[in-house]
Amino acid sequence: MRTVIRGGTVVTPVGCFPADVLIEDGVIAGLGRGWSADVEVDAGGCLVLPGLVDPHVHMGLRTGEFTTSDDFATGSRAAAFGGVTTIIDFAAPEEDEPLDRALARRLAEAENRCQVDYDVHVAINRAWDSLPQEVQRCIELGARAFRLYTAYPGLRLDDGEIYTVLRLLKGKGALVRVHAENAAAVETMKAEFVREGATTPYHHYLSSPEFVEEEAVARLLLLQRESGCPIYFNHISTGVALRLIQQAKLEGQRAYAEVCPQYLFFTAEVYRREDGALYLASPAFKGERERLELWRGLERGMVDAVGTDHCSFTREQKMRYAGDFTRVPKGVPGVETTLPLLFTEWRRRGWPLEELVALTSYRPSRIFGLYPRKGAIQPGADADIVVFDPEEEWEIGADALHMNVDWSPYQGFKCTGKVKSVLLRGRVLVEDGRWKGRKPMGQRVTPVSPGGAGEWTGRDPQGGIVGPPVRGTKLGEFIWAG
Amino acid sequence: MRTVIRGGTVVTPVGCFPADVLIEDGVIAGLGRGWSADVEVDAGGCLVLPGLVDPHVHMGLRTGEFTTSDDFATGSRAAAFGGVTTIIDFAAPEEDEPLDRALARRLAEAENRCQVDYDVHVAINRAWDSLPQEVQRCIELGARAFRLYTAYPGLRLDDGEIYTVLRLLKGKGALVRVHAENAAAVETMKAEFVREGATTPYHHYLSSPEFVEEEAVARLLLLQRESGCPIYFNHISTGVALRLIQQAKLEGQRAYAEVCPQYLFFTAEVYRREDGALYLASPAFKGERERLELWRGLERGMVDAVGTDHCSFTREQKMRYAGDFTRVPKGVPGVETTLPLLFTEWRRRGWPLEELVALTSYRPSRIFGLYPRKGAIQPGADADIVVFDPEEEWEIGADALHMNVDWSPYQGFKCTGKVKSVLLRGRVLVEDGRWKGRKPMGQRVTPVSPGGAGEWTGRDPQGGIVGPPVRGTKLGEFIWAG
Amino acid sequence: MRTVIRGGTVVTPVGCFPADVLIEDGVIAGLGRGWSADVEVDAGGCLVLPGLVDPHVHMGLRTGEFTTSDDFATGSRAAAFGGVTTIIDFAAPEEDEPLDRALARRLAEAENRCQVDYDVHVAINRAWDSLPQEVQRCIELGARAFRLYTAYPGLRLDDGEIYTVLRLLKGKGALVRVHAENAAAVETMKAEFVREGATTPYHHYLSSPEFVEEEAVARLLLLQRESGCPIYFNHISTGVALRLIQQAKLEGQRAYAEVCPQYLFFTAEVYRREDGALYLASPAFKGERERLELWRGLERGMVDAVGTDHCSFTREQKMRYAGDFTRVPKGVPGVETTLPLLFTEWRRRGWPLEELVALTSYRPSRIFGLYPRKGAIQPGADADIVVFDPEEEWEIGADALHMNVDWSPYQGFKCTGKVKSVLLRGRVLVEDGRWKGRKPMGQRVTPVSPGGAGEWTGRDPQGGIVGPPVRGTKLGEFIWAG
Amino acid sequence: MRTVIRGGTVVTPVGCFPADVLIEDGVIAGLGRGWSADVEVDAGGCLVLPGLVDPHVHMGLRTGEFTTSDDFATGSRAAAFGGVTTIIDFAAPEEDEPLDRALARRLAEAENRCQVDYDVHVAINRAWDSLPQEVQRCIELGARAFRLYTAYPGLRLDDGEIYTVLRLLKGKGALVRVHAENAAAVETMKAEFVREGATTPYHHYLSSPEFVEEEAVARLLLLQRESGCPIYFNHISTGVALRLIQQAKLEGQRAYAEVCPQYLFFTAEVYRREDGALYLASPAFKGERERLELWRGLERGMVDAVGTDHCSFTREQKMRYAGDFTRVPKGVPGVETTLPLLFTEWRRRGWPLEELVALTSYRPSRIFGLYPRKGAIQPGADADIVVFDPEEEWEIGADALHMNVDWSPYQGFKCTGKVKSVLLRGRVLVEDGRWKGRKPMGQRVTPVSPGGAGEWTGRDPQGGIVGPPVRGTKLGEFIWAG
Repeated sequence: MRTVIRGGTVVTPVGCFPADVLIEDGVIAGLGRGWSADVEVDAGGCLVLPGLVDPHVHMGLRTGEFTTSDDFATGSRAAAFGGVTTIIDFAAPEEDEPLDRALARRLAEAENRCQVDYDVHVAINRAWDSLPQEVQRCIELGARAFRLYTAYPGLRLDDGEIYTVLRLLKGKGALVRVHAENAAAVETMKAEFVREGATTPYHHYLSSPEFVEEEAVARLLLLQRESGCPIYFNHISTGVALRLIQQAKLEGQRAYAEVCPQYLFFTAEVYRREDGALYLASPAFKGERERLELWRGLERGMVDAVGTDHCSFTREQKMRYAGDFTRVPKGVPGVETTLPLLFTEWRRRGWPLEELVALTSYRPSRIFGLYPRKGAIQPGADADIVVFDPEEEWEIGADALHMNVDWSPYQGFKCTGKVKSVLLRGRVLVEDGRWKGRKPMGQRVTPVSPGGAGEWTGRDPQGGIVGPPVRGTKLGEFIWAG
Repeated sequence: MRTVIRGGTVVTPVGCFPADVLIEDGVIAGLGRGWSADVEVDAGGCLVLPGLVDPHVHMGLRTGEFTTSDDFATGSRAAAFGGVTTIIDFAAPEEDEPLDRALARRLAEAENRCQVDYDVHVAINRAWDSLPQEVQRCIELGARAFRLYTAYPGLRLDDGEIYTVLRLLKGKGALVRVHAENAAAVETMKAEFVREGATTPYHHYLSSPEFVEEEAVARLLLLQRESGCPIYFNHISTGVALRLIQQAKLEGQRAYAEVCPQYLFFTAEVYRREDGALYLASPAFKGERERLELWRGLERGMVDAVGTDHCSFTREQKMRYAGDFTRVPKGVPGVETTLPLLFTEWRRRGWPLEELVALTSYRPSRIFGLYPRKGAIQPGADADIVVFDPEEEWEIGADALHMNVDWSPYQGFKCTGKVKSVLLRGRVLVEDGRWKGRKPMGQRVTPVSPGGAGEWTGRDPQGGIVGPPVRGTKLGEFIWAG
Repeated sequence: MRTVIRGGTVVTPVGCFPADVLIEDGVIAGLGRGWSADVEVDAGGCLVLPGLVDPHVHMGLRTGEFTTSDDFATGSRAAAFGGVTTIIDFAAPEEDEPLDRALARRLAEAENRCQVDYDVHVAINRAWDSLPQEVQRCIELGARAFRLYTAYPGLRLDDGEIYTVLRLLKGKGALVRVHAENAAAVETMKAEFVREGATTPYHHYLSSPEFVEEEAVARLLLLQRESGCPIYFNHISTGVALRLIQQAKLEGQRAYAEVCPQYLFFTAEVYRREDGALYLASPAFKGERERLELWRGLERGMVDAVGTDHCSFTREQKMRYAGDFTRVPKGVPGVETTLPLLFTEWRRRGWPLEELVALTSYRPSRIFGLYPRKGAIQPGADADIVVFDPEEEWEIGADALHMNVDWSPYQGFKCTGKVKSVLLRGRVLVEDGRWKGRKPMGQRVTPVSPGGAGEWTGRDPQGGIVGPPVRGTKLGEFIWAG
Repeated sequence: MRTVIRGGTVVTPVGCFPADVLIEDGVIAGLGRGWSADVEVDAGGCLVLPGLVDPHVHMGLRTGEFTTSDDFATGSRAAAFGGVTTIIDFAAPEEDEPLDRALARRLAEAENRCQVDYDVHVAINRAWDSLPQEVQRCIELGARAFRLYTAYPGLRLDDGEIYTVLRLLKGKGALVRVHAENAAAVETMKAEFVREGATTPYHHYLSSPEFVEEEAVARLLLLQRESGCPIYFNHISTGVALRLIQQAKLEGQRAYAEVCPQYLFFTAEVYRREDGALYLASPAFKGERERLELWRGLERGMVDAVGTDHCSFTREQKMRYAGDFTRVPKGVPGVETTLPLLFTEWRRRGWPLEELVALTSYRPSRIFGLYPRKGAIQPGADADIVVFDPEEEWEIGADALHMNVDWSPYQGFKCTGKVKSVLLRGRVLVEDGRWKGRKPMGQRVTPVSPGGAGEWTGRDPQGGIVGPPVRGTKLGEFIWAG
């Protein structure tokens, strides 16, 4: 079956050009003009983007008495509506559960339920004796990334354990991804506030201010340098951390920075609102200076990937203990809103779309080993494609979104540009904003080179020599007007 | 007429994939499979690269009693053999000659003689009262870049003049490119050596050591910051300069660094050889530490473009005054050897080809306004293409090269990978290493937005929203083996 | 004759302690208690400070149609009233005048007219062929420092000449002191403003903004590093320059930063006042951010010396061409007001007095080779002493000051602390605020080791092993309250 | 009783000058000439230095099965022989013992046994609920500094506890001093080596390499910045840590760096010797690059104090478990050898003696609140004085030293300069190298302002306004020869 996306402007990380996209067997077969088709997708006046890869979501997450309202089924459907065609979620081993069993269990939860493609990264929350064996089995199961916590009692590893894990993973073709906050400092400040009965949402920020991230990132970069294992920083929320990571890159370290939209659009000031508890997330939102530094980081090429940390609790769940920030479940929903929010800002600022594509699909795909299947519009890649109308103006409302949650932090935000149609491996999931998918067809994306570091040939399975994207500098440098 | 390049692996700045390339009317019409063709170009087992854009060549350059042995005709034919399909040369106004007339004169010299496409940048060597008018007329003639000198008595501008030019060009959609050395320091040291009769080739290095570039780059970056006009640094030869430029980029400045192969492969030690005069160039080759820092800069994404500063004087010309470095004509030939030299190193180091393509074609094209016609393999771009055999092993010998000069600095260098066929706007210039071109078909490439900064719409002529390449970090980050 | 200063608290750069000071033959003979005296100086309730060394004054300066109203006679008398017992002025060679003759001529102007001790530094304003010989003769005459200009057409040297001078002086036991501004940039901006008729006092600042100093300091530090000759920066007015100098020190470079009170108390905003022309000085006063950075530099130990750049033009002289900043003579009077102004701030901020003494006497004395005669209260040093009442409150008024000029930039400033008595080599010049001096007794202070670098023994003429002051960090660090 | 030290050259942190020192009632009464005396101390041809303040010694330390061979009696006598007249030791609370009781207990151990003056700093090794009260009582007992550990299980505090302590002490006129190593990383690496049976002395270094100190110092500086409590880093052993501390100072942080002689004279290479176990200390000796960086730090003014970490175990104790570094007691003896070792190097390098005095007496005295009683030769200070012969040449031999230990790391080191006589509060302890002391006269030195931060007046008890030493830059800057 031949599908042709016709009449659009294709956007890649290095350019925009008008072209039709020919799809055969779920794979991109050609870019050009003139093909006949069994299925036509109209992209006239629209941008044709690679489906987004959201490297950071939580579906069906249980945390204490709360479970997120979005599970793999509802969350992945909403993702598709937002143009996201690949999501990466996490497996956290339960007590005594081996890592590989946790991975398998979590993969099973997604199977046959997920509407988009997915991968699962495994959290290492203890340093068992059997860790090397379990890690090895995970790698054999295709794991390419492991998550570590410096924060959260019960989850967090101490520096020695982290250093052990980093050295263990080095050379195995895997990387670690970390939540970087100085746990001991946070817990100390939190305990003080609790003792004083000062537990408003704003005290969440006060108990985990900027420096707890700055410190942890500096420390982890040093452990990275000593160990050689690549490191990916989840949800960076401060400018200093971003600059530390950038500096490390220039010294030759393999380090990556993720930012999430909520840190780009909100500051800790929202915690002072009456419904401030809604916005509680970990890490806490920070000051306005940090928010601006994150945008500046985007402009200057210091950010590697955008993830959402999608974590949907209902209004009732979030507000149940609104007066005690320690009991409020942390996290905000967002998997569906990334693209319109960022596109709107990109357009307003006159920034090039190439970089938006790089941040939301190409680079997360490469970092986590999903390229060349994901994150690219080129012959041979999976036909995961978003047709995006760059002119439509609309307003975000929780009611009209598809996430299984009754509020959105972006309620009332005005957007320019909207997802029109979405294809997953050549199959139309969304057309003109209406759901066309049938039973869940999401598959796990097996990374290209699971653990095969030792045998790495310098050539990827598609026959090309694998490499990173071109380096660049800052946005806007080719827009010549001064 | 339909031409198809069949069976190769296309390399772009963001990926490699097997695909045929369909060419119609000199333009890339499709990437995919299955087209019939009037002309077939066999790329089986080969890489299909964008034709190189060499942003820095000197053809038919007169300097005192010497004229380079390569003129536009011979130099551009050699360029084509080396896979270079666009060259950028310079117009230096003669005494009292207006800038625009110098540009027109130089363009006329290239017309009907150049075998590859070309552009000409204008040197500003005085700060006349009529400069604003002349610059404006150049911009109307399509000029996108102006060259300034901080070195060379007679050519160089003082800081006030440079600052004037930078502010003049700001917002006009143009950039400046500079040769950055502290002229006064160089001239002083040179005069001392001359007084002492110490004029061996090595004294060229001693009279223009590392710090003269470091100082000038630091100063120019400050003037850039104050003026806002983008700046491109020709032939960076020191690690400190590269780091200063990188730091400026991170602070939001628009600054670009070019390196030339000769600074990557040689140090000032060659000046001690008996035939050391052959290698004299300005800036002088530097110490081994700098050479390694330039490679490190390439690895970590600190370099924006590779140019050759191709400048071919014959062995006789170079050696005529070998005992007096001040009289030796400066410059080395190289337009033909860039690709095999760099590919060989890239392969040896296991670096990704995407970055090589970015450095040698995509980024110089974007920086100098030639994209989307040049530097890209995508529908709509000029079909300037190199078919490159990545496996052939050979040895560089001046005799077998096509430049009109009887020596090469790279004589005897062993290479892996060789240019097989070359197309310019769909026409085969080189096939299986043999010349197939007929009368010169090189055209001037008019930059996309010549001076139209004021009217800049944020959209390029192809309909896409224009932007830079994706940012990146350092090479090798996706090669997972530790 | 024995003089005893009785009952005061002696302040040195490392401590404060109650002690009487015994003086014999103009030299400090003892610190302690219990001596009888021929002459008693009452210091009860007062601080006993070393007489200030002002390393930067201009007496009887001619500049175009203007001559400063203070000459050596009036200016040095005012200095004494302000607690300054040593001044350093400059000799600028006239056309074709050899350096050593200029030095001798200027020393002759001071002789028998100066009420306090003095030295003269020679300005090098051209790079003659006979420079090495002239410099050598100056050194034989006791010269320890040479002044260079990067600004001012006619005075300024280009980078090559500066580099030549630096290398010439290296190892000769001398240092250079520089006025650091990018002349070409300043002249260019100035010419533009003049063309536009924009010549208000504020345009002086606009034509020599922060970056012209930042650039010149960066450049000179690089030339210093390459040459090895110590460098002293006159009147630093920007925070960036101060940090650059500090960074260089930490890399082992010998560089010193001077600040002047006017840059600590005023910003360019004064140029907008009706009488803004009064405050015109070169370098121009800068923005508030810079002013605060200079204070921060003082607090953190980044400043080496305080000088005044005392340059007194009358109100009529300053305002004669008030509408054309290019014609206004630059400079402000200040040699008399340094100590009360700084003491007032020091006290307000709770800063230690030791550092005030170090900045205003001890360190300039050591930098310029006057120690151990000047800048110290210790046995063997010249008895140049200020008895200072730390409690008296008063208000600065030009009428009550002793400089030969009818205005003060500090008119109306409220001070705490006042000079009570001043001794020069044991002779009372000022007692209880009244002049007691008779005919001028000022002598030239011959530096300790005039040019004897080659024979330097590591021991000073007094028998001690010579060295620098202790290093320190920032002010206030021993004031324990948080 | 009047004592006069006659004929020497007094050295202070800011100068050297020939003067006699008059002593009355144990206190310096005058500097000058001409006093008669009851007791004469001959200092002809000698330097007269302030008695050293060693801010870091361990006398009678029990650690597991070992107790140091030097107790307060023997160690303090040896200290006096080395010119050290004040030592600072530590009180570590035993289980459940309140801090103030530990302090009192330890002070009692020193009382009537210590031959030189002393103070005791208290280690905080847990974060009890009653900590605030205990700290307050310690401060009332005169405590000015508290010691924290980041290393050593059982002693170490986590980051939250450290942050709590820092905030608790802020504004109380106290500072913290820390042993900075990343404990978790060290313990992890150590455990691995133990598992592998790799426990040679060199594995001590391998399990606590450079980065564990670099990380901990970076982290603590951040906690310092956030809390505002001054911090003193014990025994810095890496160049990066030294630079981090320096950078923090320039940003206005109150941070101090101590170095110990053993890190200046040895590298980890000694651990490869047959008797390598002798040299085991914590932190481990580091690589040659670090050793050179420490000297560079001394030269450039980046070090605040020299302490010895004197900890004497006998040869038998050190070698008992030489094959298992984890069981070897850590520490080396050194309280007696600091001055001749450093003086020898100082002289060889041509460095100024002022800085040596500042590092070994003046600055530790000020940092820990002992000034103006200790660390200064000025009227009113305690007459703690060393008469030092700068010309005597001798060789260090454990037999001829006075520490109660049968080896010295410096065995065979050739020295120039030797302690001749030593006075404590005016009483001669050592004369011409022979012991003259009688029953122990050492007293605890009560810091000047024990906890009185709130009432701090800006004036010290002697009547002067208290402040820090002058700031400086790097050594050698006044030695003019290039």
